[in-house]
Amino acid sequence: MSYQITDMDVFFNPKSIAIIGASESLKFGHTMTKYLLNSNFKTYPVNINKDTIFGNKVFKSINIIPDDIELAVIVVKNEHVLEVVKDSVKKGVKGIIIESAGFAETGIEKFVKIQDEIETIAKNSNIRIIGPNCVGVTNFDNKFTTAEVDFNQSIEEGVISVIAQSGVLGNIFVEWSTSQKIGFSKTITLGNKVDVDEVDMLEYLEKDANTCVITVYLEGVKRGPKLVEVLRKTTKPILILKNGRSEIGSNAVKSHTGSIAGDDKIYDAIFKQYSGIYRVNNFYEMFNIAQAFATQPLPKGKNIAITTSSGSLGILACDEIEKQGLELAVLNDSTIKEMKSISPNWTSLKNPVDLGPSLFMTFSQSLKAILNDENVDALLHIFAVPQQPIKDFSLPITPHLRDMRNLSTKLKKPVITCVFGSRWITEYFLQHSYKYKIPIMAQISHAIKAFKFMYDFSKSNKYLNKNTEN
Amino acid sequence: MSYQITDMDVFFNPKSIAIIGASESLKFGHTMTKYLLNSNFKTYPVNINKDTIFGNKVFKSINIIPDDIELAVIVVKNEHVLEVVKDSVKKGVKGIIIESAGFAETGIEKFVKIQDEIETIAKNSNIRIIGPNCVGVTNFDNKFTTAEVDFNQSIEEGVISVIAQSGVLGNIFVEWSTSQKIGFSKTITLGNKVDVDEVDMLEYLEKDANTCVITVYLEGVKRGPKLVEVLRKTTKPILILKNGRSEIGSNAVKSHTGSIAGDDKIYDAIFKQYSGIYRVNNFYEMFNIAQAFATQPLPKGKNIAITTSSGSLGILACDEIEKQGLELAVLNDSTIKEMKSISPNWTSLKNPVDLGPSLFMTFSQSLKAILNDENVDALLHIFAVPQQPIKDFSLPITPHLRDMRNLSTKLKKPVITCVFGSRWITEYFLQHSYKYKIPIMAQISHAIKAFKFMYDFSKSNKYLNKNTEN
Repeated sequence: MSYQITDMDVFFNPKSIAIIGASESLKFGHTMTKYLLNSNFKTYPVNINKDTIFGNKVFKSINIIPDDIELAVIVVKNEHVLEVVKDSVKKGVKGIIIESAGFAETGIEKFVKIQDEIETIAKNSNIRIIGPNCVGVTNFDNKFTTAEVDFNQSIEEGVISVIAQSGVLGNIFVEWSTSQKIGFSKTITLGNKVDVDEVDMLEYLEKDANTCVITVYLEGVKRGPKLVEVLRKTTKPILILKNGRSEIGSNAVKSHTGSIAGDDKIYDAIFKQYSGIYRVNNFYEMFNIAQAFATQPLPKGKNIAITTSSGSLGILACDEIEKQGLELAVLNDSTIKEMKSISPNWTSLKNPVDLGPSLFMTFSQSLKAILNDENVDALLHIFAVPQQPIKDFSLPITPHLRDMRNLSTKLKKPVITCVFGSRWITEYFLQHSYKYKIPIMAQISHAIKAFKFMYDFSKSNKYLNKNTEN
Repeated sequence: MSYQITDMDVFFNPKSIAIIGASESLKFGHTMTKYLLNSNFKTYPVNINKDTIFGNKVFKSINIIPDDIELAVIVVKNEHVLEVVKDSVKKGVKGIIIESAGFAETGIEKFVKIQDEIETIAKNSNIRIIGPNCVGVTNFDNKFTTAEVDFNQSIEEGVISVIAQSGVLGNIFVEWSTSQKIGFSKTITLGNKVDVDEVDMLEYLEKDANTCVITVYLEGVKRGPKLVEVLRKTTKPILILKNGRSEIGSNAVKSHTGSIAGDDKIYDAIFKQYSGIYRVNNFYEMFNIAQAFATQPLPKGKNIAITTSSGSLGILACDEIEKQGLELAVLNDSTIKEMKSISPNWTSLKNPVDLGPSLFMTFSQSLKAILNDENVDALLHIFAVPQQPIKDFSLPITPHLRDMRNLSTKLKKPVITCVFGSRWITEYFLQHSYKYKIPIMAQISHAIKAFKFMYDFSKSNKYLNKNTEN
């Protein structure tokens, strides 16, 4: 049986939704229920034990809802899931998201069997099923969500999409990234994957006009050869985080989503084989690098310039540049001369350009000289200034970010800022960076790795073919 | 010429201080000047061009101050430093901190020569000199500082001390750590090290009653054999961060503090040779691990238990446990039985114990069962719960932290909490963790590495000898 990619649309833009097991009380699904019932999405709560939820009429069964239902979201206890899945099939839904946990991952025969039966239902119908053991999807473009995302807080949409196996982690990804002003287009959690898996979603996101970068959190894979084929075909950059590398870890994978983690060496080989696929070590790294892809032009070469207010952190950046096989840009004499004319005699103006505390007076002109230097392909700006002088003298940061953005766009050279210090200064930068779309990172290694992956992507067939076609 | 270790006391508890080059305007030293002049430390501002600073009478030279001066802090321009050093010698000070930059690190002959002359002065007198190109010291025990530390904000003292080569980074360390509620005893920045170096300070901190953990940020070493001897002798755990590993990086070291980075393999071999010395990869890792040493009992074995609200993060922890050569604790049947009696049927109760959203109801009893299990030597608690349910239901975190602290202290088993999500939840934990002295980390790898280093330290001769003596 062959599915159409548009099958997936029902999960991201359903015309009508039933929440089966909807509840006002403390459990997963609570935030979603409250949000959807107050939204413009046509939502019907279903619960056999309730009459009203948040002031809305409750239906005892999906089958008595006097309307067509496109999407059923299931949050009932594990032992009732099979029954309400069958009800939903009878109702003629197009898609089902099962959020309830307690299936193959328990290792208990009774629950493994229920999951198998649901899998069979999916195979024998045209209905697509996400889950169980997940929090479904969030579409930041139209603000539809089945997860614990609070769109009443200001959440900016972006061009990064996420495929995650884990439900809780999927929510946490979004919370952390939102606080870092990293914007998403779609986030998807897959859980135990009785039907819809990363292959379906990679195909969907490849065609999704709002997605420019794809990030994937994987624990195990069921359709290995198919995944390899899709990874080979996808033309957008893909960042992959794969857990369960160790033996202890892959045992834990089995009790988490019932998946087989597989031999880590095989994954590593597959990820390395295809251009445009990059493996990352943790989710902070994954989203920081995704944000660089999402907001910056690709570097044309591998010569990195560094401006820093801390010599030590400049040295750390040099170590990372060598580790990643990039080069420290050799600045033109004219660039150094231009900076010298405005700098105190104690500043070190070879790359890394250590502006020390003179940063505030010399930054804008130095930045211009450096980015205009044809030996420079990308700039890492390291900002480490104690909070007190910034507060005492109301030192401005916004003009620096604006200048960086303007020059970076004009000259098509990527820039990343790393910020060090107390939470106050990081917050200050994040508030202002978003407007200027400059990635703000706390770790230099993430910034240098981003330059490396972006440089590699610019040289990859996927990128070159696409840009020759245009 | 042999120095006494008590020579160093003048830097941490001076009876009288002259700030030479004191200023109200924007430059390094501003915050220190303002702070010291308003403190109980007897401080005299010296500036040839000023009459008053922050309302205090200014002296044209250190030599006309009508009082003995123990410590001179120099913040004048590089070309005037030699002259005021000579003035300070004439005045009979015991110690000098030169914060001004622009010496050997510039590579300019004139300034290299000035630094050499200062070095000769130090060699031929009993006066000890820190710097140039640094921000001196901060003593959190008596609130004396020559750096940009604002003691008017609530800064808690602790038992971690820092030796850092870099000035700016020294300030930034303190800001970041303070925002993480990590408490310091002494922080020291050494700059170009004409006289006082890490050897002097390691000897000082070994004898300092308030220091329990020593962290060192190194770029280069002048007295290699002497450093090795001191590292061998020191009985306190030492965490070392060494930059300039690569060729590009070690060139940058030379333009930063005029040091020679040296062959990284030699450092690595030396750090590995002596027990109690642990190399770390970045300063977040350094201070997170230091905080674990500072607040937790040492583990008696290497069996780690994990409680988590996210299965994925539990798996990540398993991968790290295997990577570090530790073991995933095998829980007693009675422990699992006790947890089963209070948990929903879908929770996974083998270690890693995945409590999922049932965390709030089951944590306290599960914690008790796990920590009392004789197969468990340490506990990692992973907290990843979306913000919204915590806010909507005012879910309590403090009782968990209090229970963890009480049990950990009673049973002498270390606990660490890793928190994931938005800044809101991290802040919330940090506010409450401090009181209960539970380290809060954002990265699981740091927590597992902390357990590894603490376990190794508990097996080291340094620790065993010290505890046999007692």
